[in-house]
Amino acid sequence: MRQDVLNLTPYKPSKAVCEIKLDANENPYEIPNEVKQRIEKRIKNEKLNFYCDASCDELRGQLSIYTGLKPEQIFVGSGGDEIISDLIFAFAGPGRDVIIPVPSFGSYETFARISGANVIKVPLLLEEANGNFSWDLDVAGIKRYFRSDIPQLMFLCYPNNPTGDYFDEQKMFDLIDSFNGIIVIDEAYFEFGGKTFSDRLSDYPNIVIVRTFSKAFCIAGLRVGYALGHEDVIEQFYKVKLPYNVNTYSQIAATEILKNIEWVKKTTVGLIESRDKLVNELKKLDGITVYPSSTNFLLCKLKKSRDYVYEQLLDRGILTRRLNGENLDNTLRFNVGTPEQNDKLLMAFKQIL
Amino acid sequence: MRQDVLNLTPYKPSKAVCEIKLDANENPYEIPNEVKQRIEKRIKNEKLNFYCDASCDELRGQLSIYTGLKPEQIFVGSGGDEIISDLIFAFAGPGRDVIIPVPSFGSYETFARISGANVIKVPLLLEEANGNFSWDLDVAGIKRYFRSDIPQLMFLCYPNNPTGDYFDEQKMFDLIDSFNGIIVIDEAYFEFGGKTFSDRLSDYPNIVIVRTFSKAFCIAGLRVGYALGHEDVIEQFYKVKLPYNVNTYSQIAATEILKNIEWVKKTTVGLIESRDKLVNELKKLDGITVYPSSTNFLLCKLKKSRDYVYEQLLDRGILTRRLNGENLDNTLRFNVGTPEQNDKLLMAFKQIL
Repeated sequence: MRQDVLNLTPYKPSKAVCEIKLDANENPYEIPNEVKQRIEKRIKNEKLNFYCDASCDELRGQLSIYTGLKPEQIFVGSGGDEIISDLIFAFAGPGRDVIIPVPSFGSYETFARISGANVIKVPLLLEEANGNFSWDLDVAGIKRYFRSDIPQLMFLCYPNNPTGDYFDEQKMFDLIDSFNGIIVIDEAYFEFGGKTFSDRLSDYPNIVIVRTFSKAFCIAGLRVGYALGHEDVIEQFYKVKLPYNVNTYSQIAATEILKNIEWVKKTTVGLIESRDKLVNELKKLDGITVYPSSTNFLLCKLKKSRDYVYEQLLDRGILTRRLNGENLDNTLRFNVGTPEQNDKLLMAFKQIL
Repeated sequence: MRQDVLNLTPYKPSKAVCEIKLDANENPYEIPNEVKQRIEKRIKNEKLNFYCDASCDELRGQLSIYTGLKPEQIFVGSGGDEIISDLIFAFAGPGRDVIIPVPSFGSYETFARISGANVIKVPLLLEEANGNFSWDLDVAGIKRYFRSDIPQLMFLCYPNNPTGDYFDEQKMFDLIDSFNGIIVIDEAYFEFGGKTFSDRLSDYPNIVIVRTFSKAFCIAGLRVGYALGHEDVIEQFYKVKLPYNVNTYSQIAATEILKNIEWVKKTTVGLIESRDKLVNELKKLDGITVYPSSTNFLLCKLKKSRDYVYEQLLDRGILTRRLNGENLDNTLRFNVGTPEQNDKLLMAFKQIL
């Protein structure tokens, strides 16, 4: 057993029984029945005894329409997680650096360690101005690690999970313009904030964008994600991925949802409104600091012990998430639910805080 | 880009249009309609907006019944491919050896190279006695590479793909008994031959068995495979796998097929009979040597150019596979189809050879 792998903590999500599940940044809405029926109709005619399409041609075609990029600039994987691990195995590995501003999505570090790469974590700066907080990039702190003698890979989660908001755009460009390696911009929550680097790919062939169907597209259970980038970079995915990485059902489901993009957009607008309303209501409470969010979730800092608040919420049937890491002590993360769920959460917070 | 990864050839399966697809060792039969309906009924009630079960509890429960092992001894992955890559990332990697008797399943070498491990390939011995051929382990040749100063991982594909048959059992034990590292026994084709090491796991805590739902279980398109082993070894999978590795639909489908195991057994018996009949008929032809098979496919050596035969078969709508590697020159591999497909294949061979 590899010692560095032995030291890793297995990712085992909570299986707590709850009425309202807000711990995994999932979408509270199911895809519409008419789309589900169309998927079922198609799957009836699929020969599941044959392997799935190894290059997801139909789905890449639909994604090409959605993103405005060529199919050759798009790679489809089994969730954003596979995109991240594929990138690390292709571009990182032993003797190479992986630079991660933290706290951020845990998979970057996990797969960097599995690949044998050197992990460099640079804490975000938590700034306050007039009672408004922001988590932003420590540009000078990160640049200190830039070097040209060994290959480096850098992850920028935009907007950032678990802190919830975008980094300053100028700071992003400052880092991007002075970095030699591959820059991964994780846009898993793109649809909830609208900012993207996908229109800058022609200027920056070393940027790879990660997207997912697990958030705005409502199919976390089906594992579909994709990468956008220069076609020479995208081609490398095919060398490191599992030969048949996205199963037939999930390819069809993602394709059919893209054909109903208006429903996705409408649902997303609704969630954004719910989020902003929830933020405003939470801000009225004492004992809780709500960090700004351009995602479908909120990170909050509590005055009372977070374990106490977590357990009290769970007693009321509401599952949230306690994350550990830089500056995350006594914080809770929870995603935006349906208006009814948000009301219940708000009521619970009022009672508990 | 890592130079060792840059040198890898991407796996891009043939997309040739054909009437009879025999190139990927798929099962020609679809799962029964009643099972498909039961899957559809269950998926209707699943909330696909939530992540899938990260530890596949229900499916491991069914597999526990099927294999007679404890759920803790079973890990479920996205096809046998994921099991293989997970094992390599957990136990191989830089500074470690991966020993592979070749020719064998290509993923062992691919993922070993991606992990940065040292790949040791030892050619199988192709032996002939009274016109009967067998591909067997070069025990002395393999043992020459055994060492105790660095960790080693060894793959034994049993029965072996692409050669088709089991290695001699005594030779297997000879290797296993003198090896210190983890031994992966790939039983992807177990159901077509019946031999297994799953009843020897208590004697050998360093054996991990790989199985798949892509062959006898008829759902290659859904990507489900599993590992059997000592629970301390199985636990390591959770540290290197993708967090949510098997999607909801595939977990349900595999579970429902296991509940209909009698249909799988009946179909498998039929395929074995078809295989043996096809072997007998092919042996009557000139210009083709059929190697023995305990799988659902046959490897054959041709007198005429294999490219010519391959193209002639494709002209008749039949897709087969040309593999490259040790002793595989001028061989073709094709899986057993339905009786009608096998008759057409036989007729085509008669015309072409």
